[in-house]
Amino acid sequence: MVQRAAVMTGLGSIDVREVPEPVPGPREAVVRIEAVGVCGSDAAYFTIGRIGDYVVDGPIILGHEASGQVAQVGSEVTNVKVGDRVAIEPGTPCRDCHECMAGRYHLCPDLVFLATPPYDGALQELMAIDARNLFPLPDSMSYEEGALLEPLSVGIWGCNRARLAAGDDVLVTGAGPVGLLAAATARALGAGGVTITDVSDFRLGTAAALGFQTEKADADPAPGETFDVLLECSGAPGALSAGLMRLRPNGRAAMIGMPKQDVQLPLARLNPAELTISLVNRYAHTWPIAIRLVASGRVDVKPLVTHHFPLSQTAEALTLAKTVPDSIKAVIHPQQ
Amino acid sequence: MVQRAAVMTGLGSIDVREVPEPVPGPREAVVRIEAVGVCGSDAAYFTIGRIGDYVVDGPIILGHEASGQVAQVGSEVTNVKVGDRVAIEPGTPCRDCHECMAGRYHLCPDLVFLATPPYDGALQELMAIDARNLFPLPDSMSYEEGALLEPLSVGIWGCNRARLAAGDDVLVTGAGPVGLLAAATARALGAGGVTITDVSDFRLGTAAALGFQTEKADADPAPGETFDVLLECSGAPGALSAGLMRLRPNGRAAMIGMPKQDVQLPLARLNPAELTISLVNRYAHTWPIAIRLVASGRVDVKPLVTHHFPLSQTAEALTLAKTVPDSIKAVIHPQQ
Amino acid sequence: MVQRAAVMTGLGSIDVREVPEPVPGPREAVVRIEAVGVCGSDAAYFTIGRIGDYVVDGPIILGHEASGQVAQVGSEVTNVKVGDRVAIEPGTPCRDCHECMAGRYHLCPDLVFLATPPYDGALQELMAIDARNLFPLPDSMSYEEGALLEPLSVGIWGCNRARLAAGDDVLVTGAGPVGLLAAATARALGAGGVTITDVSDFRLGTAAALGFQTEKADADPAPGETFDVLLECSGAPGALSAGLMRLRPNGRAAMIGMPKQDVQLPLARLNPAELTISLVNRYAHTWPIAIRLVASGRVDVKPLVTHHFPLSQTAEALTLAKTVPDSIKAVIHPQQ
Amino acid sequence: MVQRAAVMTGLGSIDVREVPEPVPGPREAVVRIEAVGVCGSDAAYFTIGRIGDYVVDGPIILGHEASGQVAQVGSEVTNVKVGDRVAIEPGTPCRDCHECMAGRYHLCPDLVFLATPPYDGALQELMAIDARNLFPLPDSMSYEEGALLEPLSVGIWGCNRARLAAGDDVLVTGAGPVGLLAAATARALGAGGVTITDVSDFRLGTAAALGFQTEKADADPAPGETFDVLLECSGAPGALSAGLMRLRPNGRAAMIGMPKQDVQLPLARLNPAELTISLVNRYAHTWPIAIRLVASGRVDVKPLVTHHFPLSQTAEALTLAKTVPDSIKAVIHPQQ
Repeated sequence: MVQRAAVMTGLGSIDVREVPEPVPGPREAVVRIEAVGVCGSDAAYFTIGRIGDYVVDGPIILGHEASGQVAQVGSEVTNVKVGDRVAIEPGTPCRDCHECMAGRYHLCPDLVFLATPPYDGALQELMAIDARNLFPLPDSMSYEEGALLEPLSVGIWGCNRARLAAGDDVLVTGAGPVGLLAAATARALGAGGVTITDVSDFRLGTAAALGFQTEKADADPAPGETFDVLLECSGAPGALSAGLMRLRPNGRAAMIGMPKQDVQLPLARLNPAELTISLVNRYAHTWPIAIRLVASGRVDVKPLVTHHFPLSQTAEALTLAKTVPDSIKAVIHPQQ
Repeated sequence: MVQRAAVMTGLGSIDVREVPEPVPGPREAVVRIEAVGVCGSDAAYFTIGRIGDYVVDGPIILGHEASGQVAQVGSEVTNVKVGDRVAIEPGTPCRDCHECMAGRYHLCPDLVFLATPPYDGALQELMAIDARNLFPLPDSMSYEEGALLEPLSVGIWGCNRARLAAGDDVLVTGAGPVGLLAAATARALGAGGVTITDVSDFRLGTAAALGFQTEKADADPAPGETFDVLLECSGAPGALSAGLMRLRPNGRAAMIGMPKQDVQLPLARLNPAELTISLVNRYAHTWPIAIRLVASGRVDVKPLVTHHFPLSQTAEALTLAKTVPDSIKAVIHPQQ
Repeated sequence: MVQRAAVMTGLGSIDVREVPEPVPGPREAVVRIEAVGVCGSDAAYFTIGRIGDYVVDGPIILGHEASGQVAQVGSEVTNVKVGDRVAIEPGTPCRDCHECMAGRYHLCPDLVFLATPPYDGALQELMAIDARNLFPLPDSMSYEEGALLEPLSVGIWGCNRARLAAGDDVLVTGAGPVGLLAAATARALGAGGVTITDVSDFRLGTAAALGFQTEKADADPAPGETFDVLLECSGAPGALSAGLMRLRPNGRAAMIGMPKQDVQLPLARLNPAELTISLVNRYAHTWPIAIRLVASGRVDVKPLVTHHFPLSQTAEALTLAKTVPDSIKAVIHPQQ
Repeated sequence: MVQRAAVMTGLGSIDVREVPEPVPGPREAVVRIEAVGVCGSDAAYFTIGRIGDYVVDGPIILGHEASGQVAQVGSEVTNVKVGDRVAIEPGTPCRDCHECMAGRYHLCPDLVFLATPPYDGALQELMAIDARNLFPLPDSMSYEEGALLEPLSVGIWGCNRARLAAGDDVLVTGAGPVGLLAAATARALGAGGVTITDVSDFRLGTAAALGFQTEKADADPAPGETFDVLLECSGAPGALSAGLMRLRPNGRAAMIGMPKQDVQLPLARLNPAELTISLVNRYAHTWPIAIRLVASGRVDVKPLVTHHFPLSQTAEALTLAKTVPDSIKAVIHPQQ
């Protein structure tokens, strides 16, 4: 029995080919993948072959923002059944180590994460994964919304790391998918006001349409405009430092964007305000929250999806950000 | 110069009479009161003359859920100016004691609180109060909404005391104004789901119309229905204990309602779940949050106001809950 | 191959008999038990056959405060080796459920806990247990000290649940082993002052010798003596309520003692102080902390051990509290 | 009426001259200063005339680590009386602003702080200060110990900012007075182990004598040596970054030392561990804690005082760190 998968065979090269159908282990389920969002990390692996210490050194299937329908379950699976429509949490922890037992499974040193070398991802018709990573979707939610629970989880966790409190004024730097969803989360968790900055007018337009205050990233900040919380989602050099300078005393920052180079901080000027800077590594415990926020309408992820592709056009989807700068998020549909 | 005030002259008796106009101290403002919500505590002082250790022992002006327009400011006032439309926080702390300096001004032993004997309240045309208790209202918010920021503050603080976290399933016992606003706050702060219980079908109908799950308080709870957070807003005997029994491990409860008698807790059965029970005394730091939640539409306080009265009908407003059980909240308009 | 075990064969009856030697599973170790502290729960099972819903309905081996030397390890054990001197954490969680993954393994519904029916305990020469429950002891620590890490863990977790902060004034009600170790923990974690109450002059004497303030439990409290934190360790009816009345605003209480009957709380009088009451179910993540506190001399557990018994005198050890009221803690030595 | 004061009249120049005796305001007390510790900031003002944005631009009296005896009290003072031996908290907040009311008076924008331009400090025989900044010393504590409560407060607050938890392994970078007292605090608050690094063998010797693990700052760190908490007390370039690299997942760092230049952080390498970096600005609410820790013997500040000076040798005291590298802390005695 075979199925189709979009295999990255080299830098910039995708081969949609037939691969064996997966067989689920006792605690695994096989999911018929219906929607896969394209993340900047997918694009980075595709175009430059690495992110930090993670290097692509063989064929790999990309994609970790995924949803689908349960097609088969292993003998010990109890939380989902064949036919369930599910969102997929991409990281599978060991459930045994110190970090797992401390409630921080996302920091598990043995975490198996979709589409992070050497592990394959979701850009295939069928995928086996630990059934405990699957979360049933309400009927009202589409597969597309299910796939976007992954970047929404990044936003939820960023707010958590920043210890966002009700009434906080929030500055989000970067209006890409993660920035927009971090902003939406902040609003849904009781932020006072939310301002987003970006260099792209297109993205700021999307942010404004979603109801956020916007600010051109290269403009001089309005004097006196200060915030309680910074959610750095751009990864741009200098964004963290510039954002920190706009925080009020006791301000909190979460470093969600991944800067490619060292970050320079003027601590002598920042210390007096007693800021707290929280680094961020993905998320934990967020899928149930994300589902509730989307299902109730408190967060709307749909406006982020600007482009759709069948599996055969995976390469086009992975390069969309470059070819169509006025885009936000591409979704690939492996069954098409 | 005189103005009209609704003076409680004895149990069940209100005299709307002329009293001297207030003169503001250097840090005070005089507010032309436009809307005053009636609270259960006002009704209790009016009908039985006491709440716990607070006893009415002379003429008193009731009313502490208030908003209005600044009519005059003292010489040192900088945060508001004449003409500002403002909501009023009713408690004035000493700003000097251990509790004030610890960030818990609501626990200040010298707190001066509107309409709590021996202090007068807001059921008058003009009232002087520390200007730091005044919070300008956005143009989009009505005085009525401004007055309801007080019970909304109770809800916000209750969620805070319960350490409500995103995704928590919340049980609210009691669908009166405080219960409904506690529920609305929980939703606006990212609760997973919110269920309200009450004995009154009318109140449950209001709760359902506001989008909450509802449950008749005297019904047997559905088996398996458990929650992460309990917001006890009924003050009913047994409500805390019954609610605690439905909490999941690590559940948190806030005791917002004020029970008239001792509460009995089956700790031997509750200890294994390691619950946390937080007692509640009003609120602190909540007005800025409340304004943001209402102004942005995340909390709608308007459906709670079922009845309106001019100052001359203060007595009718204070007894509304008894005369019209199918009511939620009365608002008195002192300028009418 | 056989070994000796102290089997409780019925109410008040211990039979020290030969039982099969345990065979370790792949992740288990067999420990040669050297010291077992007697806990009030052991005494309760022995004399009345039950604690709450846990009922002894067959032969059982008691004892869950234990230490010993690793005698054998399963094929997959890596954290300890034969010959290691170890303290034993008595609860083995599933490492898979929601509570385990949330960092609260002690609330795991499938927790296997030594000497809690139907599971056997440590009053035997050799015992198999998950090796991840074993914590190597520094050379400077005796087996006796190792066994007392269990009640010390109760104290550590109680302080944690009470959110003890540096400088807090602490009231400990009950000067039994748990109360004394909760007091010692509070001091070692930076409490301002620690006062212990009890009805027994002998126990208060021990408390005083350990450097704590003491107070006769039946005496009227000194006026004005108030505290930030209450660690209720007596389980006495009324102790929680009386202790709560002595807390300052924002006070926090941990309910460590297990009351046999319902607890009555005057919430109307307690609400104004905005207290927080935390229920307690054993502990989690405490052994590494306990070892560090004892090894460094910051907590001295040795003065608690007033009596020693060989395995053959298990019944005497289990009834010591009744026969010798002027005792604190009995330790049984299974190899004697 | 005159008294003597050590007035800094220019860079490197102290004039011990007669100045008018202070007259206390209604809420002030006059303190006969008995001991003043010399801080690095005093030395910096003395030798280079500035710290960050604070510039000495006129005669100033230095010294902010002080204790003494109450000599006179204003009409409204109730917390101390003439003759009381007191420690002095050097910062006087406005008790009115947002930060003060939030419990963060140390971030008050109008904080008046001893020996921070343009405010005078304690290097004089008599000094008037808000009586609420005075904390009575137990008879068992010396004035010298009273003066050292200020640097101890820095250590306490640093542990607080790092959210130090019981059992945490702590790395302290810098074995000066602040580093040693931060280490002592960490131990007194339940740290697992405490390791201090420094470039000075003399200071490491003191650290070792106080019972801490030590490590030469320029040595390669022992492989595998990792920590939960970093207390950066050196201000050395690179110390924060190097220390962060040794933190475990979920590690927390407090930036107590004030770096003179920008700090460079390899966030791409640090993000995966999800560290939290807390900046630090002095302290709040620490004097009562500090007094309890010292009075009970849990922290010993005395070994830090290596040198004593009369007021006439203030200049020598201010330059001790340079002239006698093998020194830790100088104390000046204004009555001598």
